[in-house]
Amino acid sequence: MGARLSDSRLYAHLWGTDELRAVFDEEARLQAWLDILAALAAAQAELGIIPAASAEAIAAAGSVDGLDLDLAAAETRRTSHSTLGLIAALRRVLPAEAAEHVYYVATVQDLTDTWTALAIRRTGQIAWRDLGAVEALLLDLAERHRDTPMAGRTHGQPGSPVTFGLKVASWADEVRRHRERLAEGAPRWRCGQLGGAVGTLAFFGDRGLELRARFCERLGLRDPVVPWLTARDRIAEFGHLLAMISATLARIGGEVYALQRPEIGELREPSTPGAVGSITMPHKRNPEGSEHLDTLARLVRAQATTLLEGMVGEHERDGRAWKAEWIALPEACLLTGAALAQARRLLEGLEVDAGRMARNLAAGGGYAASEAVLAELSPRLGKHRAQELLQDALRAGRERGETLEEALRGSGALDGAAPAAATAGCSAAIVDAAVRRGRAALATEADPWG
Amino acid sequence: MGARLSDSRLYAHLWGTDELRAVFDEEARLQAWLDILAALAAAQAELGIIPAASAEAIAAAGSVDGLDLDLAAAETRRTSHSTLGLIAALRRVLPAEAAEHVYYVATVQDLTDTWTALAIRRTGQIAWRDLGAVEALLLDLAERHRDTPMAGRTHGQPGSPVTFGLKVASWADEVRRHRERLAEGAPRWRCGQLGGAVGTLAFFGDRGLELRARFCERLGLRDPVVPWLTARDRIAEFGHLLAMISATLARIGGEVYALQRPEIGELREPSTPGAVGSITMPHKRNPEGSEHLDTLARLVRAQATTLLEGMVGEHERDGRAWKAEWIALPEACLLTGAALAQARRLLEGLEVDAGRMARNLAAGGGYAASEAVLAELSPRLGKHRAQELLQDALRAGRERGETLEEALRGSGALDGAAPAAATAGCSAAIVDAAVRRGRAALATEADPWG
Amino acid sequence: MGARLSDSRLYAHLWGTDELRAVFDEEARLQAWLDILAALAAAQAELGIIPAASAEAIAAAGSVDGLDLDLAAAETRRTSHSTLGLIAALRRVLPAEAAEHVYYVATVQDLTDTWTALAIRRTGQIAWRDLGAVEALLLDLAERHRDTPMAGRTHGQPGSPVTFGLKVASWADEVRRHRERLAEGAPRWRCGQLGGAVGTLAFFGDRGLELRARFCERLGLRDPVVPWLTARDRIAEFGHLLAMISATLARIGGEVYALQRPEIGELREPSTPGAVGSITMPHKRNPEGSEHLDTLARLVRAQATTLLEGMVGEHERDGRAWKAEWIALPEACLLTGAALAQARRLLEGLEVDAGRMARNLAAGGGYAASEAVLAELSPRLGKHRAQELLQDALRAGRERGETLEEALRGSGALDGAAPAAATAGCSAAIVDAAVRRGRAALATEADPWG
Amino acid sequence: MGARLSDSRLYAHLWGTDELRAVFDEEARLQAWLDILAALAAAQAELGIIPAASAEAIAAAGSVDGLDLDLAAAETRRTSHSTLGLIAALRRVLPAEAAEHVYYVATVQDLTDTWTALAIRRTGQIAWRDLGAVEALLLDLAERHRDTPMAGRTHGQPGSPVTFGLKVASWADEVRRHRERLAEGAPRWRCGQLGGAVGTLAFFGDRGLELRARFCERLGLRDPVVPWLTARDRIAEFGHLLAMISATLARIGGEVYALQRPEIGELREPSTPGAVGSITMPHKRNPEGSEHLDTLARLVRAQATTLLEGMVGEHERDGRAWKAEWIALPEACLLTGAALAQARRLLEGLEVDAGRMARNLAAGGGYAASEAVLAELSPRLGKHRAQELLQDALRAGRERGETLEEALRGSGALDGAAPAAATAGCSAAIVDAAVRRGRAALATEADPWG
Repeated sequence: MGARLSDSRLYAHLWGTDELRAVFDEEARLQAWLDILAALAAAQAELGIIPAASAEAIAAAGSVDGLDLDLAAAETRRTSHSTLGLIAALRRVLPAEAAEHVYYVATVQDLTDTWTALAIRRTGQIAWRDLGAVEALLLDLAERHRDTPMAGRTHGQPGSPVTFGLKVASWADEVRRHRERLAEGAPRWRCGQLGGAVGTLAFFGDRGLELRARFCERLGLRDPVVPWLTARDRIAEFGHLLAMISATLARIGGEVYALQRPEIGELREPSTPGAVGSITMPHKRNPEGSEHLDTLARLVRAQATTLLEGMVGEHERDGRAWKAEWIALPEACLLTGAALAQARRLLEGLEVDAGRMARNLAAGGGYAASEAVLAELSPRLGKHRAQELLQDALRAGRERGETLEEALRGSGALDGAAPAAATAGCSAAIVDAAVRRGRAALATEADPWG
Repeated sequence: MGARLSDSRLYAHLWGTDELRAVFDEEARLQAWLDILAALAAAQAELGIIPAASAEAIAAAGSVDGLDLDLAAAETRRTSHSTLGLIAALRRVLPAEAAEHVYYVATVQDLTDTWTALAIRRTGQIAWRDLGAVEALLLDLAERHRDTPMAGRTHGQPGSPVTFGLKVASWADEVRRHRERLAEGAPRWRCGQLGGAVGTLAFFGDRGLELRARFCERLGLRDPVVPWLTARDRIAEFGHLLAMISATLARIGGEVYALQRPEIGELREPSTPGAVGSITMPHKRNPEGSEHLDTLARLVRAQATTLLEGMVGEHERDGRAWKAEWIALPEACLLTGAALAQARRLLEGLEVDAGRMARNLAAGGGYAASEAVLAELSPRLGKHRAQELLQDALRAGRERGETLEEALRGSGALDGAAPAAATAGCSAAIVDAAVRRGRAALATEADPWG
Repeated sequence: MGARLSDSRLYAHLWGTDELRAVFDEEARLQAWLDILAALAAAQAELGIIPAASAEAIAAAGSVDGLDLDLAAAETRRTSHSTLGLIAALRRVLPAEAAEHVYYVATVQDLTDTWTALAIRRTGQIAWRDLGAVEALLLDLAERHRDTPMAGRTHGQPGSPVTFGLKVASWADEVRRHRERLAEGAPRWRCGQLGGAVGTLAFFGDRGLELRARFCERLGLRDPVVPWLTARDRIAEFGHLLAMISATLARIGGEVYALQRPEIGELREPSTPGAVGSITMPHKRNPEGSEHLDTLARLVRAQATTLLEGMVGEHERDGRAWKAEWIALPEACLLTGAALAQARRLLEGLEVDAGRMARNLAAGGGYAASEAVLAELSPRLGKHRAQELLQDALRAGRERGETLEEALRGSGALDGAAPAAATAGCSAAIVDAAVRRGRAALATEADPWG
Repeated sequence: MGARLSDSRLYAHLWGTDELRAVFDEEARLQAWLDILAALAAAQAELGIIPAASAEAIAAAGSVDGLDLDLAAAETRRTSHSTLGLIAALRRVLPAEAAEHVYYVATVQDLTDTWTALAIRRTGQIAWRDLGAVEALLLDLAERHRDTPMAGRTHGQPGSPVTFGLKVASWADEVRRHRERLAEGAPRWRCGQLGGAVGTLAFFGDRGLELRARFCERLGLRDPVVPWLTARDRIAEFGHLLAMISATLARIGGEVYALQRPEIGELREPSTPGAVGSITMPHKRNPEGSEHLDTLARLVRAQATTLLEGMVGEHERDGRAWKAEWIALPEACLLTGAALAQARRLLEGLEVDAGRMARNLAAGGGYAASEAVLAELSPRLGKHRAQELLQDALRAGRERGETLEEALRGSGALDGAAPAAATAGCSAAIVDAAVRRGRAALATEADPWG
């Protein structure tokens, strides 16, 4: 059992997904490292740098199950070197000649940066898929509630109406931009690393660049052209995008949290059979899934800051920033993956109480129409004069517990006619445009990680 | 005089540029707001929402010089409303009818978000230009020093050689990616905002969307389709890009700071006539410009974090996050602008001491060739065996003050021949590829803000 | 007019107070610097380092009004040195001999760090006073509402009752701890700085330490014993305390924001005559003051992070971190001062609607008593069995729209008697203890800054 | 194997210590939870709330080894409740009656906050001990090098001399302040939590406060008086102190990193037998331990920011912030513990090359004496005139490669005599004062966690 709650037997499901654990678990990571070493050996064999037999032996032996990880751990500690332990374990299971050709001559950073690119690719694929699913759910929801009126709220206070569809369209629109960002960034992020000691591939003489190209290609990665040993903008950018994605999901979660307050009661996150809200207050049904989206976003944000800070590195390699990435980037990936999965569950079962939305909108004396009344009076009275008149009349009326209409009549602003009715304005038209655009994009855009 | 050192008469030049002050100064900002209000009035007049005469009067009166800013300030305080002060001052200088048609019916956020989009556009233009200039300087520098060998350094310790050109190519490559990001993001960021109370344009009935489209077009902005009142990912993304740009410049500055240490002496930032390094130690020549790039990057990073946090807003408007943007985004723009200007000055006059680079590389007994020796011995001894042999021999030799060759001979690893010479590997080829790619991009890419 | 909104004629009042501006305004800062230089000269004259006449002349000439600040600004830029501009302006207004004895031999950091200690002291005094006022307001409020029941809320959902006094006591208790922290930290923070080039006071020979002691004493500061040129923990600690204070005030503001929702309506921030909530929705009364506390806390938090990062400095002086302090620390002071003033206004006029609290508590069928019912049933049924029974019965009943009592009867858990009534438990007793402790402390504790 | 590198079999030693893992490992945490539940039961039995037999049974059964953790994990997932899984496992191993009395009626937060207080206490004890050890090492080192001259460096540039002892005294002084902060904060942090649903202890009627007092006392914790369910300043404060401690250690590490550059060569971190710096460049000896202190400080800083943000919670409980603590606080504790252990190793074996310090100081033509020369010339020429003269003469001389003396002679400033010699000023006296003060404190201060 580990010391991090995020790896706890009881709680790990809150801080990652099985799918992403299958990327970042130690065993999976070590296996990916072995695969990278096998790709390196294969590329080297192609170029005649090592014998083909060695490359084959390395590929054949490259299973983490066959390694003595106790030895690897002990040698890691003894040498204070990040990969000598693994190398020692590998050499044990390889024929003598091939043992000299494994890890020939990668550095720790070549290995881990290349793995990072692979892990980013996998995380990016998952995020692409899950964002697509979230967007599709949101577009459906927006369309379904295109005309469901509810109070718009600013400063936490109900005001003019919107439709619920408009609110959802704003979420969908934000998710769309994240898909754009994922697509734009993918070519930047999926670059391998191979440079030897200081990025020059000096060990390999004039075959260096060709080796790097073949190595990257074998792994489905792009050739970076220029080493990125201390150029960590890619990592910072990807980490920040994860933080933005998490923040969007936290915005959705926060809205559910607020609108699930029983005093408002317009939304409810899905109820899970068996779920217990509170032991001590057995009647409660808590928006814990929504809430958790906020928790996750906070934690990803902290990682993103660390990654951004890590861009200011020194010389040809700078372990200070880079090793902070070792912790921060996987954490950001795992937490964002958990947030995406949670958001999907939330949206798949989100309960919308259109009746309560309508009642809340009507509640409190019809003041939701104040903007409509202002629009009605402005041409006649002048907009600023109308605003001043309403400002005084409506606040006073509200303090006295009058309805909007009563307050208006008392002020003399209405001459006989009923006041204008509240309207959600262009909400539906905006929803239509957003849904059309979103669906078109989902239908046509290519998977940038494909 | 202000309470912020960044606006100080004595020190403001360190924390912004005149060019960006001309965007963010209060007078300039208010003028831009007036221009936005004039554009709104013009679009409204086109659609018959207000009389053409009002729009003309609003345009004619729309100069900040003509406004009573004391009144504006007093009314701002009295009403606790962000724009009623300005409106009061405007109404004073407008004919009675037009006075009712100004600010008809924008909200504070319509005004300030639209202004933010304009400010981002201007900042983006400057960043685009300055990054281009920085990249061009770097490509020239990389080419000039394509073959200038120097010690590569990892963990702060000299190791195998690189060329200075390779180091510079890594900077140029990172700057290139920032240009890509600026180009990709520009269409996302340059969106106006017009929505009235809750984004639905209800005040304008079914003319709302057409009004928004014309309003945005007049200002050279895109129509956002969906209101972004609480969808602040654009701001967070732009702010983070500024932070990444600043971080890249800080990386360059940090390298100069480190290599200007007289014990190393490979780089020096340009000396300004009249500049005084230290009063108390009159001989000193300090890398203060380089250093300042780091200071600026720290400060921009803090703003970016605030902007990221601001994505988690609530409902149809959330002043908590949004007003934090009011402070954080201009600050990030001003500071990044200062960093770009400073980086240009630094790179235009950067002093490169190729002789010292060569001497440092040769110093210490030739150990910079250890990777080359490893490459030489690996085919014969096996790579890991060679590494272990060298590990022991070279560390011991170094402790004894021997040269690499002496250490090798003592170990028996060399049989007669001189050890392999240190080489910068593929440095020059990488420089060539980077310069070619960068120059091609600079020559062909269109200004995304044009 | 400055480029920072926080120094805007229209908006500066939101981001600082007049009192703190009088500390941080450029003019005030420069005057404080002159006072520090006068104190230095006086201490030097006492020790015979400079003639008494020079010290007197420096004191006499030390008014910022008499200085040519255009010259100071121009020389600052020409020399790229932070204080040579000021020195040049000073030399102009001093007799020839005294002109050589001003700034003899302080460094920029001696001057600005000592000023920082003075500014911290002044900010600390204000925070001490305002926190005391806030605490006193809270203790009164807690006492007044010792027995005012309201729904306790967890996860945003009403549950068992608390009293409003208990909620307020939790705020007061947190404020109390900030007073403790201010008192504990004050001796650490109020240290002067005088060290010359590298902190050794070498310029002054063996009179150095005596000079430093007298210099500090004249300014009411403590002698640091060890130079703190790159030991910036004091600054980080103070900045973090400001951020914590702001966060506490944001917690209070956030509660008002939430409970002012008209759907809840339990609290309202004071209404200011003349204040306009929304132009477009004239009926609205927004919790903008409460909201702003959150905005301020976000911004202070960002500064605190910068200050914390600044602790990792290098060698005997490190401008990278230190100049970031120049911006971040005053900003944190100004913003926290604004938050404290805003919180006082908020609490002085906070409207508590005890009737609404009671109605909300009773609303929804009496489920607030579920914990009491659990307590009642547990001895009979066993606690976990009771919990399971209630869990099912109450959730089902609530879904069916039944009252708690109906739900209980349906479940068979109640045998005739009425269910237990909701109770606020030990709320009142806790309030009593907190008020007693807080008042005693306020009455007896000495001003650590006195 | 876990998905976090920090819990990796190969690398966990870099991100925590065995001692702290014994606090935070899942098994240890669960055991501590059981102990807390046993203490609760015992206190309840004392007050007659539950039968003594139940308390005894709970104590007897309270071993994590006896629990079915698979069941606990499955039930945690099924109920989406944080402790129902554990409760289910406990009920399995308890007699029927006692099974109803376990967890009677604590809430998740009562349990976890109380555990947090215990974990803070243990972490605080370790930090107290290790900071004491670090301080003692530093005081010895400062004393030993009280008179070891070396170049003071500002802006990365050598200037006037200090002694190495002075540099070390600055570290020791900062560590001392952390010990003060630990001692001051301990009484604040070591508070238990027991409040039931909303902090009022309503379940327990008028025995609530007495129960809380006894519960806390049994665990060696203080009674909080006021519940701190959403008052998280204690956690933010402790987390920030850990971040400050880590930052101080990173400052020390950074200095070693910089001064271990072979071009400077004044310090070297201890060499570990078997340690391999670089596979690819076998001669290298890297300051990886020093470097790692910086990495750790970055990561702790990010956690501290999350904890600070968590202070702004809502109502009587707010899972959003609180669950972020679940991750951030243990992480901060583990990482800081790793940093402290690493710093001790570093300082125990730190290699100081006094000869190289002296040679570096003398190198470059004696310019380290420029402040001394300024001091010598100031009385005669006037300080500012002397500074201007030296400014020009020394910079020019240095550019021409002259020694300080040659440059001075050329300028006419010296009339025959040799220039003043560089001096470390009051370095030794400052060291003496710091050592005296530090040793006295170490000898007398009581363990605040004892």
